[in-house]
Amino acid sequence: MSAKLKTAVLGVSGYSGLELTRILERHPRLEKPVLLRRECGDGANDLAEIFPELSGNGGYPLRALSWPELKRQGVRLLFLATPYEISRSLVPEAIAQGMRVIDLSGAWRLKQAQHRAIYSFQDDDHVNTASLTEQAVYGLPELNSDRIAPAELIANPGCYATSVILALAPLLKAGVVDRERGIISDSKSGVSGAGKSPSTHTHFVSVADNLSAYAVFAHRHLGEMVEQLELDDEDLTFTPHLLPIPRGILSTIYVRLKNVTRPAEIESIFRDFYSPKPWVRVFATPKLPQVQYSLHSNYCDLGFCLANDGQRLVLISCLDNLLKGAAGQAVQNMNLMQGWDQREGLQ
Amino acid sequence: MSAKLKTAVLGVSGYSGLELTRILERHPRLEKPVLLRRECGDGANDLAEIFPELSGNGGYPLRALSWPELKRQGVRLLFLATPYEISRSLVPEAIAQGMRVIDLSGAWRLKQAQHRAIYSFQDDDHVNTASLTEQAVYGLPELNSDRIAPAELIANPGCYATSVILALAPLLKAGVVDRERGIISDSKSGVSGAGKSPSTHTHFVSVADNLSAYAVFAHRHLGEMVEQLELDDEDLTFTPHLLPIPRGILSTIYVRLKNVTRPAEIESIFRDFYSPKPWVRVFATPKLPQVQYSLHSNYCDLGFCLANDGQRLVLISCLDNLLKGAAGQAVQNMNLMQGWDQREGLQ
Amino acid sequence: MSAKLKTAVLGVSGYSGLELTRILERHPRLEKPVLLRRECGDGANDLAEIFPELSGNGGYPLRALSWPELKRQGVRLLFLATPYEISRSLVPEAIAQGMRVIDLSGAWRLKQAQHRAIYSFQDDDHVNTASLTEQAVYGLPELNSDRIAPAELIANPGCYATSVILALAPLLKAGVVDRERGIISDSKSGVSGAGKSPSTHTHFVSVADNLSAYAVFAHRHLGEMVEQLELDDEDLTFTPHLLPIPRGILSTIYVRLKNVTRPAEIESIFRDFYSPKPWVRVFATPKLPQVQYSLHSNYCDLGFCLANDGQRLVLISCLDNLLKGAAGQAVQNMNLMQGWDQREGLQ
Amino acid sequence: MSAKLKTAVLGVSGYSGLELTRILERHPRLEKPVLLRRECGDGANDLAEIFPELSGNGGYPLRALSWPELKRQGVRLLFLATPYEISRSLVPEAIAQGMRVIDLSGAWRLKQAQHRAIYSFQDDDHVNTASLTEQAVYGLPELNSDRIAPAELIANPGCYATSVILALAPLLKAGVVDRERGIISDSKSGVSGAGKSPSTHTHFVSVADNLSAYAVFAHRHLGEMVEQLELDDEDLTFTPHLLPIPRGILSTIYVRLKNVTRPAEIESIFRDFYSPKPWVRVFATPKLPQVQYSLHSNYCDLGFCLANDGQRLVLISCLDNLLKGAAGQAVQNMNLMQGWDQREGLQ
Repeated sequence: MSAKLKTAVLGVSGYSGLELTRILERHPRLEKPVLLRRECGDGANDLAEIFPELSGNGGYPLRALSWPELKRQGVRLLFLATPYEISRSLVPEAIAQGMRVIDLSGAWRLKQAQHRAIYSFQDDDHVNTASLTEQAVYGLPELNSDRIAPAELIANPGCYATSVILALAPLLKAGVVDRERGIISDSKSGVSGAGKSPSTHTHFVSVADNLSAYAVFAHRHLGEMVEQLELDDEDLTFTPHLLPIPRGILSTIYVRLKNVTRPAEIESIFRDFYSPKPWVRVFATPKLPQVQYSLHSNYCDLGFCLANDGQRLVLISCLDNLLKGAAGQAVQNMNLMQGWDQREGLQ
Repeated sequence: MSAKLKTAVLGVSGYSGLELTRILERHPRLEKPVLLRRECGDGANDLAEIFPELSGNGGYPLRALSWPELKRQGVRLLFLATPYEISRSLVPEAIAQGMRVIDLSGAWRLKQAQHRAIYSFQDDDHVNTASLTEQAVYGLPELNSDRIAPAELIANPGCYATSVILALAPLLKAGVVDRERGIISDSKSGVSGAGKSPSTHTHFVSVADNLSAYAVFAHRHLGEMVEQLELDDEDLTFTPHLLPIPRGILSTIYVRLKNVTRPAEIESIFRDFYSPKPWVRVFATPKLPQVQYSLHSNYCDLGFCLANDGQRLVLISCLDNLLKGAAGQAVQNMNLMQGWDQREGLQ
Repeated sequence: MSAKLKTAVLGVSGYSGLELTRILERHPRLEKPVLLRRECGDGANDLAEIFPELSGNGGYPLRALSWPELKRQGVRLLFLATPYEISRSLVPEAIAQGMRVIDLSGAWRLKQAQHRAIYSFQDDDHVNTASLTEQAVYGLPELNSDRIAPAELIANPGCYATSVILALAPLLKAGVVDRERGIISDSKSGVSGAGKSPSTHTHFVSVADNLSAYAVFAHRHLGEMVEQLELDDEDLTFTPHLLPIPRGILSTIYVRLKNVTRPAEIESIFRDFYSPKPWVRVFATPKLPQVQYSLHSNYCDLGFCLANDGQRLVLISCLDNLLKGAAGQAVQNMNLMQGWDQREGLQ
Repeated sequence: MSAKLKTAVLGVSGYSGLELTRILERHPRLEKPVLLRRECGDGANDLAEIFPELSGNGGYPLRALSWPELKRQGVRLLFLATPYEISRSLVPEAIAQGMRVIDLSGAWRLKQAQHRAIYSFQDDDHVNTASLTEQAVYGLPELNSDRIAPAELIANPGCYATSVILALAPLLKAGVVDRERGIISDSKSGVSGAGKSPSTHTHFVSVADNLSAYAVFAHRHLGEMVEQLELDDEDLTFTPHLLPIPRGILSTIYVRLKNVTRPAEIESIFRDFYSPKPWVRVFATPKLPQVQYSLHSNYCDLGFCLANDGQRLVLISCLDNLLKGAAGQAVQNMNLMQGWDQREGLQ
């Protein structure tokens, strides 16, 4: 049997980083991952100091990032669970050092400059970043597995984007959607999607017993959806909402079909598209996914409801934003890059 | 100064009944309301036995329903916070007894038989119910105040319906909506909207950390919306969701405008429509209502966001399902029926 | 009828300040209160900018603190809902200006220097503060109404302290408690008690689906309890916990009775103590208060359960930390200071 | 390597049954478990119909209980996650059939008749049940591992009882507790501990934004605690509370030490007792466990805080009521019965 892979993770003190650390630790084909802290960290020497839930398990030592040290340890795959600016500045060096990278931030997901404008980096003036932007593969395994396998740099998708793209891709590919009539995704996310930094918006009293819409027409994940689904910007209306739950996403998506259609045809389109793919579950109508069903799993659950007119279609897409929407999907990408079963380490 | 009005409430053991009792108790123009229990009640003699939060306030005695007794006490207005079947059977007698009625159920809201079919009563074979169905006034004060004032029977609107109709009515009246493109309301409600009867769906563990869609294309309040907004059934897609909060509704509504429009024009349409109306608050873009803002108040809060294309419009409508969506609106209707200020007793 | 009282509030941008503003606004014996902002405020000109739930009500203008201006407006009573350091520095001047003050912070609650040490101010070197510390009346109306009425400076009690003192005072006064055996209060509070400043501890993801104890043996409110109940420090063990709810406190209090006692005797002790007091409700065993029952009210609810041995007694004390635990109690104190009914403006 | 063990589970439609099914499915030393339904079941043929979160995993067929069929399939270990009455009636037959049994209900936990009286079965008139009651081993691995290993019938402990016993056992064994002064456990549990049957008490609106004490001095788990800790009934006061969270228990336990003690001594007592035991984590003071830390794990977390007087000791004990408090502990017991590592299948 082949030797185990050595990996490293930078940015383990956030919610996605914690989930990623847990999965990598238990993954049967990996050595214990190297956990890296950013210099401006809070001084913890072990991740269990930050997350006491990790205690009693032999320790999770944190090390400062050092390229020579990573090389010495034989790290061949680096996960970045860092803010996009950090990722933007570190990835070129990591690639130059011969590592493959899976980046969980938005730094490398967008190909079109008008979409990248929503981030504050200015990258296209630098040969290397421009080239990496081009090379980076959008790591949605259900769509791009062929290009993920050999990739040097994976841009792991956004959580909202994953829920919306997986719901729409089969229908758009099948050509049944009347794009002229517009596509709407009304999406709702748990608070961990907003990150771990305290703010007025994430204060318990602001979130509990509440629901709020935000970033209407202006969320960063919109560009990913449009690019991956090959839509025009105005084809898709996306409204995110903040739910009073810690984790989980539910997207309710509205499309108009070109022709009068039967529910069984819709179900077939989804089943044909996803039948060989282990991490998407298609619900038979009238059963619909709920946030709870996919929590703590790497599944994206899809269900639908078709109006009696046979044209108005409501899709429900659920996933755990920290797993299929972040860390789990990153591991699924690693599995593809290594030629392993996509389920490895994720069950 | 005129004598105070004597009222009675049947169905006080539910969530709306509790809120209604509290408001009526404090209403400066009312005598202490008579609280009636249904015969199949749980035997409580005082409402504070069911709702200990009411204790220490002098008692809330429950009495069995008796028409002669109500007459003897001079009750001139009866509130029904009962299931629709009860309301359907009691209202004809109440009207015959000379009382005016405000009914909080769905029993009398719908004029079109194809919409009423979603309820299980068969009413049109009976002269009196057919006639009452015709006479009943849909008690949405912001739309129907002229007809509410003299009405004998008020059908108090559904909570979802109130949130959707109030958001859409000004735009439809102004003629700016492209109905051909379809209107969508993605609505989310707290659990009290599902009533107080325990069920698998309202079990804490089923609701907490969760979000679920239900009754897609098939919710009872859809008929109310369509009738009041004078839409065709297929013009409006309505998807309710169950939120992990006790109370509150947020509807995210998607419309397409006929022409390219500026935000200020949208705001004007709303302000013109609602400026003299005390219980609707219009938020200036880009501020949006949140569920918390209208909790424990009788306000319906409206806000909007217009895409850069000037045609895709997202409306946000929030209210407390037990107040503006039920008991508060019932009192607002009573105020109109009595010729009082609509705010009386609701602040 | 006498003229209405003019009041001012400093510190309206916190949770208690908001509640206080709402109550004062509606209080029938007050003019509209003057709302003051601290200089280091966030620049809002109207409180509705900070709390959109206040919008649509005619405006809540914020003014900078100016003694001459307050005098010019005839303000005779000042509420401080500020951090204790601010209160410590402002109260001497306010008193010197001839205003009466109700301070909601911990600045003036403690008489004994060893208890005050838990706060970081050094006050006893200053004649004026030392004297004010002495004069300040602990504003718990159920215990100190005689001294509250004429007071210049009210130290409004802490939320935990109110729940614990009100439960224990009748029993201690009756002399039935075996103090030798120790008294324990295991108290649980909603998150608003921790204030509005964002922190890791108040992040939604840290609080939801969680419960945690904190400040064991070391909470600031312990000194208040001990002083007001005339206990020795070691007589009382107090453990606060952070509940995943926005507001509300439940204290479970354990005492050992000196003699074997019947439940009816305990109930009598409570009823005798509280019968003429409007804001404490005594529950008849076996009924126990729950957090929900007193939410959004000024009640403190008390219940108890006595073991079969007739000596082990469990007390349950519930209140809304923002009302009876802060703003409501402040208004109750004002009512006493003005010679009004204690219920005025609080129903 | 030895053949895998064949197990069966009766009562998989409850919360503990679901967790148990998931663990057994993944346990590396087990064949796929046989899932049994009670005859009065709801007719589901596959557990994924009841718990959609299980779908997409190859199916969880439910079979009717048949002793010959279980024998034919070679089932040697039976888990019962059923109400205690069912367990009381089935276990004698299961044992007679030669199976070993791990019962998750309260049916076999209590040795003393006065404690069993809280359950409604009358058992001691039947030779077999009386004998089984005697033989049954209380399955708390940290205390009884020697007797668990060879047992035929394991009475899996109650969730509250586990949290309290594990916190107190080391101190009582060390003889440092002043029992005369009384021991108090103020415990708080998530709602899944109340079971899956809908009721007024588990309705979302009754639980959310609330906290309530219940069954004071009268909870069924009290007998277990007293028997296992070899206390007199009046030594221990136990107050359970219902938390607005789906799962997790935190017990705050108050003991008085006989002698003035240093924190390091307390920590030593715990570390010595638990150092070779994998599923208890001892927190170094001043760090305290929180409910979140042990959620979704089989850990019981213990921490403590000692007053400056060196005698008043507060213990914090946390666990996941469905894992260490039920299904996880059952699997830990199975591991001991089979001579496997206690961690097997639980990580």
